[in-house]
Amino acid sequence: MDVLKKLLRPRSVAIIGASADTAKTASRPVTYLVKHGYAGRIYPVNPKVAHIGGLTCYPDVASLPETPDVAIVLLGVERAHLAVRELAQRGTAAAIVLASGYTEVGEDGSRRQQQLLEAAGSMRILGPNTIGLVNLTDGIVLSASGALEMDEFPAGIIGVVSQSGGILGSLLSRAAARGIGLSKLVSTSNEADLELADFIEYLADDEATQVIALYVESVRNPKRFHAAALKAARAGKPIVAFKIGRSEAGARAAVSHTGALAGADRMYDALFQQVGIIRAQTFSELMDIPAALATGRRLKGKRVAILTSTGGAGTLVSDSLGLAGFEVPPPDAETAAALRALQTGDSAALDRNPIDVTLAGLQPALLRAAIRALLASPSYDALIIVVGASSLAMPELMADAIRDCLPLSDKPVIAFVSPHAPEVLALLTRRGVPAYFSPEGCTAAMTGLLYASEWQASEPSPAMAALQMPACHPEGVQDEAQAKQLFAHFGIPCVRENIVADSAQAEAAARAMDGPVVLKVLSSAITHKSEVGGVAVNVLPQAIGQRLAAMAVEVQARSGIRPERYLVQEMVSGGVELILGMHSDALGTAILLGIGGVTAELFQDTTLFLLQPGSPLSREDALSMVHKIKAWPLLDGFRGAPKADIDALVSAIVDFSKMVQQLGDQLLEAEINPLFVLPDGLGVRAADGIVVMAPAVEASGGAGLDPVPSALCLSGSSA
Amino acid sequence: MDVLKKLLRPRSVAIIGASADTAKTASRPVTYLVKHGYAGRIYPVNPKVAHIGGLTCYPDVASLPETPDVAIVLLGVERAHLAVRELAQRGTAAAIVLASGYTEVGEDGSRRQQQLLEAAGSMRILGPNTIGLVNLTDGIVLSASGALEMDEFPAGIIGVVSQSGGILGSLLSRAAARGIGLSKLVSTSNEADLELADFIEYLADDEATQVIALYVESVRNPKRFHAAALKAARAGKPIVAFKIGRSEAGARAAVSHTGALAGADRMYDALFQQVGIIRAQTFSELMDIPAALATGRRLKGKRVAILTSTGGAGTLVSDSLGLAGFEVPPPDAETAAALRALQTGDSAALDRNPIDVTLAGLQPALLRAAIRALLASPSYDALIIVVGASSLAMPELMADAIRDCLPLSDKPVIAFVSPHAPEVLALLTRRGVPAYFSPEGCTAAMTGLLYASEWQASEPSPAMAALQMPACHPEGVQDEAQAKQLFAHFGIPCVRENIVADSAQAEAAARAMDGPVVLKVLSSAITHKSEVGGVAVNVLPQAIGQRLAAMAVEVQARSGIRPERYLVQEMVSGGVELILGMHSDALGTAILLGIGGVTAELFQDTTLFLLQPGSPLSREDALSMVHKIKAWPLLDGFRGAPKADIDALVSAIVDFSKMVQQLGDQLLEAEINPLFVLPDGLGVRAADGIVVMAPAVEASGGAGLDPVPSALCLSGSSA
Repeated sequence: MDVLKKLLRPRSVAIIGASADTAKTASRPVTYLVKHGYAGRIYPVNPKVAHIGGLTCYPDVASLPETPDVAIVLLGVERAHLAVRELAQRGTAAAIVLASGYTEVGEDGSRRQQQLLEAAGSMRILGPNTIGLVNLTDGIVLSASGALEMDEFPAGIIGVVSQSGGILGSLLSRAAARGIGLSKLVSTSNEADLELADFIEYLADDEATQVIALYVESVRNPKRFHAAALKAARAGKPIVAFKIGRSEAGARAAVSHTGALAGADRMYDALFQQVGIIRAQTFSELMDIPAALATGRRLKGKRVAILTSTGGAGTLVSDSLGLAGFEVPPPDAETAAALRALQTGDSAALDRNPIDVTLAGLQPALLRAAIRALLASPSYDALIIVVGASSLAMPELMADAIRDCLPLSDKPVIAFVSPHAPEVLALLTRRGVPAYFSPEGCTAAMTGLLYASEWQASEPSPAMAALQMPACHPEGVQDEAQAKQLFAHFGIPCVRENIVADSAQAEAAARAMDGPVVLKVLSSAITHKSEVGGVAVNVLPQAIGQRLAAMAVEVQARSGIRPERYLVQEMVSGGVELILGMHSDALGTAILLGIGGVTAELFQDTTLFLLQPGSPLSREDALSMVHKIKAWPLLDGFRGAPKADIDALVSAIVDFSKMVQQLGDQLLEAEINPLFVLPDGLGVRAADGIVVMAPAVEASGGAGLDPVPSALCLSGSSA
Repeated sequence: MDVLKKLLRPRSVAIIGASADTAKTASRPVTYLVKHGYAGRIYPVNPKVAHIGGLTCYPDVASLPETPDVAIVLLGVERAHLAVRELAQRGTAAAIVLASGYTEVGEDGSRRQQQLLEAAGSMRILGPNTIGLVNLTDGIVLSASGALEMDEFPAGIIGVVSQSGGILGSLLSRAAARGIGLSKLVSTSNEADLELADFIEYLADDEATQVIALYVESVRNPKRFHAAALKAARAGKPIVAFKIGRSEAGARAAVSHTGALAGADRMYDALFQQVGIIRAQTFSELMDIPAALATGRRLKGKRVAILTSTGGAGTLVSDSLGLAGFEVPPPDAETAAALRALQTGDSAALDRNPIDVTLAGLQPALLRAAIRALLASPSYDALIIVVGASSLAMPELMADAIRDCLPLSDKPVIAFVSPHAPEVLALLTRRGVPAYFSPEGCTAAMTGLLYASEWQASEPSPAMAALQMPACHPEGVQDEAQAKQLFAHFGIPCVRENIVADSAQAEAAARAMDGPVVLKVLSSAITHKSEVGGVAVNVLPQAIGQRLAAMAVEVQARSGIRPERYLVQEMVSGGVELILGMHSDALGTAILLGIGGVTAELFQDTTLFLLQPGSPLSREDALSMVHKIKAWPLLDGFRGAPKADIDALVSAIVDFSKMVQQLGDQLLEAEINPLFVLPDGLGVRAADGIVVMAPAVEASGGAGLDPVPSALCLSGSSA
C-alpha cells in the first residue's frame, strides 16, 4: 500500500495549525521533527506568524510551495475538516488528525467524524484523536507525544500499533529507557479510516520490522484483522497484543448461559490464538515479550538454566518459571562436571540449578566458562542470567562475559536484574540480552518465546457442502423437542423421547422405553425448567402418572404457566456431561465447548473457537477444543473410568458448527446442555438444548453459502 | 528484647576480617558505615593492617578497647566460629555472620552451623549467610550489600525482614529509587538463631515502623511466627509478605488426594490469612502494597475514581481494577455537576469516570478543583491520578495540585505514571501519593488497602473438652467401615451400612434398606475402589447377588486381591458432594474443605484452615471455610435447587476438627469423600472416607490435650 509508505516516510510534511508558542502542544510536532533529525521538507501552516523555529510559516494550504506528502492537522474539531478538505483537494496522500471530539464523545461526534471522512475524499486519514506516528527506522517523528521530549530512542525491529495515543507515548519512552529498539509506532485511535489491520499489513511487509506489538482496545474489522495477522505470521513476524476491556466482559452478560460464560474478551482470546498472536497478560508484557522475540532466538523446550551470583534472586526467577510450567532441572553429568571444574574453592555448589557462583564467583573467566557450559548443555533450552547488587559496581563484567558467549549458541539468553539498576538493564538489552526488572517479566518472555515456536496455523477446513435445509421451524424460542429435531437434522445424536399430553400417554411412553425415564415439561415459554419444578429424573413407569400430575401443579404454581405437553425421555447415565453451544458478538460467531451442568457456570471451564466465514470446524480444530477444557481428563479415562467416545464428540462439534454456518443469521442462539459423551464406541447424546431463531424477515442468506430460505418455515423440505 | 535493640542500634561495632582492599567485599561494611554516617564507634579487626579508611585496625577481638555491642564477622566458614567464640567470651551482644557454607550446602554445613551456634553460647547470631542489616531510622548500616553503593535512602516507616540477603539489597535499592521510605531492613537468611518472628516482634514494638514487609522462603517456627504476626496486627501494623516456593507445591504431592490438593504453599495462604498478613502475588507487590499502607490511609470500599489527562492510561487502570473486583462508577449527580462546572469549553466530558481532563485540562486550578470534587464525593472510596507523557515537561504541576488537596480527605490517593518518568514517580511518592509504574501495581495497592481494612482476627474458639476416646482402631490404613465408625464417634452422621460376606447377606441387607443401594468392596488394602471395579451404585435388592459375584471376579482380576467382605449402603442422592479432610506438613495441621468427587481434583476448589494447638475450629471459622469454596453457590440454592443444610455442615466441620485435635499425632490421614450435604433440615452424611493411624508406638499425647492412650487399640473404651 504505497500511501502507507508515504505516510510513514514522507518527503515533505505540512503542519496545519503549528504554533510558535513552545508552551502549547501545537508547537510540538515542528519542534520534534527538527529535534529528531527529519531530513525532509517541513511546512508549518499558520496565518498568524511568519516563522516557526527558523522555518517559513505559510498562511494556508493553498500557498504551500508544493503538495506535501503528509499533513499533521493540529486544528480543533470545529476546523479540522476544513483543512482536511483543502489538503485533499491539493492532492496530499494522507493527513494525521489530532483533534478529539469525534466518535468518542457520542452522536454529535460521530456526525463530525463522518463529515471529516467526507472532506478527506480519497485522501487517507490517520485518527482523528491520534497522537500521530513515529518512524525510528528513518528518524521521522510525526507526533505531538510528550514522550518525544526524551533525546534518544534506540531504533530496532519492533513495530508498534496502538489504538491509544497516550499509550504510544508510554511505550515509546519505556522502551527507550530499557534499551529496547523500536522501528515504527503508530497510534490509530478513532480509526475513522486507517486501522489496525492496515498497519499490521504494512509492518508485515516492512523490512525493518521483525516483531509486532499491538495495544488493542477493540478490533473494528475482525475479518481484515484476521487476514493481516496471518500475513504477518506467514512472514515469520510474531505479533504480541495487549488488549484492554478484559473486566467489562463480566458486565456484558449475554442472554443465554453460553453467552454469559463466553464473554467478549474470551472471543479475543480465541481470535488471537487462531492467528498465532501472543497475548500479553499485563501492560509490561507488551514490551517484555517483543524484547525477547526481537533477538530472533527461539525456544525449543521448557528447560531453563539459571546462573546467579545471588541465591535469593535465582530462587525468585525459578519460582516464577515453575508457576508457568517451566522446568529448572539440575545439569546432566557432563555439564555438572564442567561446572564443578570451575569450583573456586569456596562453598558454592556449582553443579546445581540455579547455578549460584556467589559473590566470589564474579570473575570474568569463571562467568564465561559457566555460561559456555550451560549454553552447550543438552539439558537446557534457554539461559537466564541473574544480576545482583554486587554487579552494580562492575556493570560491564556480566555484560562482557555474556556478549562473548552469545554467538556460541542460538538458545535464548535473557537477564533478570535484581537491584535497581536501569543502566545495567539497558546495557544488557542493547547487547542482545533482553533484561528484566521483574521475575514475572522473565517468565512472560519465556512463555512468549515458547508460544511463538510452537504455534502453527491450522489447516483450513474443507469448504462445506450445504445440507438439505431442516423442516419448518418457527421464529423465536424453540421448545426442547424442536431444538433437538434441529440438532438431529444436522447429524447430532439425541436421546430418544416422546411428546405426551397426559399421565396415560406418559406411562405408555415410559413402558415402551423399558427402564426409568426422565419426565420434563415441554414449553418454549419456560427456559429454566428445573427452577420451576419441571424436571423429574429416574422415574419408573408405574409412578410416572402421579409424577406428571404433581409436576403440572408445581410448574403452574411457580411459573404461572399451565403445562400442556411433556417429554418422556430415555435416561442416560454413565457419560460425561458437556455443553456445546455458540456465541456471537462483534468479533463473529464462535463454537463453545465446556463442562456441562451447574459446574459450567461455577468453574467457567469453557473454550471458544471462532468460525471463519463459509467453513465449519475441521476435525482437528474440534479435537483441539476438546483438549483445551479443564475437564479433558474426565473424558480421557480419569481414575479408571472408561475413556469417552472422543470420535463421536468431535463429529458432534463439527456437525454443530455446520448447523451454525448453514443457518447463519437465522440462528440467534443454539446450545446443547447437557451433551452426554458416553464410553468409547457408544457415541454421544444431546439430552437438552435451546434454539432461538430470528424473526422471519428477508434473511441475508447465511454465511456465504447458497442462499437459504428467508425463514425455515417457508422451506418445503422435511427432516 | 533488649539485645535486638542493641543489634539494630549499637553504640559500637567491630568488623572482624575487615579488608583495606576496596575491591574486596570485606572492605564494604566499614566503608558503608562511614559513608552512611554512623555516629558510633567502629573497630575494624584485621591482624595484617594497621588502619582501614582512617580508622585504627585491631589485630584481634581481645585487643579491642571495649566490648563492642555488635560484631560483623566477615571471615569464611572455616574461621567464623573462632571469631564468634572470642566475641561471645568478650560479652558482645550479637554477631552478624556473613559466611556461607552452612545448612544451605547440606550435612557438612549443618554440622558447621551447629558448631557456630555452640561457639556463640548466649551471644545472639544473625545469619549465617546473611548480608546483614540496615537501620535507616538511625543511619546505621551493618551490611555488605552492594546496594549501599547508592548515596541516599529515604527513611520511612516500612520495616523489612528478608530471608535472603540478595533480596534485601534489591528491596533497599528499588525502594530508594521509587521514593519509598524504609525504617529497618534485616536479612535473617539461615536463621541459626535469630529468625523472622524475632524481628516481626521487634518491629511491632518499634515506634519508627508502621508497616512490615516480609520476604519469606520458609517459616521455620510457625507457632512463634503466628504469635508475632498477631502482635503486629494488634499494634495496628499491617504485614505484607511475598513467599517463594509457590511452584514447588505441585511437586511435593502428598499421599492422599487431600494432601495433593492442599500443597504446602496453600498452607502458607491459610497461615497468612489467619493472622491478617497480606500476601504479595508478585515480587513488585512487596513494595507496591506497603507503599500504599504507609500513607496510613485506609480503603473503606471498592469504588475508585480515576482522574487522567490521557484516556488510554485511564482505561488501562480501570481495566486492571475491574479484573480485581473494584468498581469505577460514574460520579453522583452533585459531583458530576461540580465537574461539569470545570468544563474548559473543549470536548472533554468531565462528568464520567475515568475523568479525562485531556491535555487542555492540565491547568493547576482545574486539577485542584477536580481532585477536590472527587475526594469530597460520597460516590468514591479512593482516587487514582494518572500522569501522562504531557506531565513530563511539568512534573510539579500534578504533584503540587495533589499535595494541596491531600489534607482535605483521608481517602487513599495513589498515582499511575504512564510514561517512563522515574523522577515524577519518586516525587509523588515522597509527597505522600504512592506512585506506580504498572496498572497492576495500582490494583495490588488497592487490594492490599482493602484487605487491611477488612481483616479481623477471628475469635479464639473455646478450649475443647476431650471426648471419650473411640473404640479400638488398628494401626495403618483403616477400612471404610472402620473409618466411618471413627467419624461417627466424633458426631459426624454417616450413611447406614452393613458389612456382608456373600450374595445372600447382601440381598438381605439391601431388602432391609428398602430401595436401591450402593455395593462396595471392603478392604483396607484397596484405596481406589472404583478403579478396580469395586463400586456399584443404584443396585436393586433382586440384582445385588449377581452384582456381588461379578464384582468379586472383576476386583480380583484388576487388583489381585480376592474380596472377602462388602458394604451394602443406603444410597444418598439429591445432596451436594463435598470433601472434608486434613492436611499436615511443616506448618502444622489444617482442615480442608472442597467440592467432592472427581471435580475436586480437576478444579482445585478447596480451602484450608490451620488448627491452633488445643483448639478445634469455631463455628464461625467453619462457616468462613464454607463461604470460601467456589462451589458455595451450589450450597446456597443455586438455580432453584433447595438450600443445603449449612448448619449441619458447619457442625460436621467442627466435629471433624475435634477428631483431628484429639487424636493428634496418632492420626496420619483422615478424609471424608464424599460428604453429602442434604437440603436444609436433612443434615449431612459421610458416604466414604479414609483414615490412616500411626503405628502403635509410645505416642506423645496428641495436641496438648489430656494424654491419650498410645494406641487406640489399647484403650478400653468403646464407641
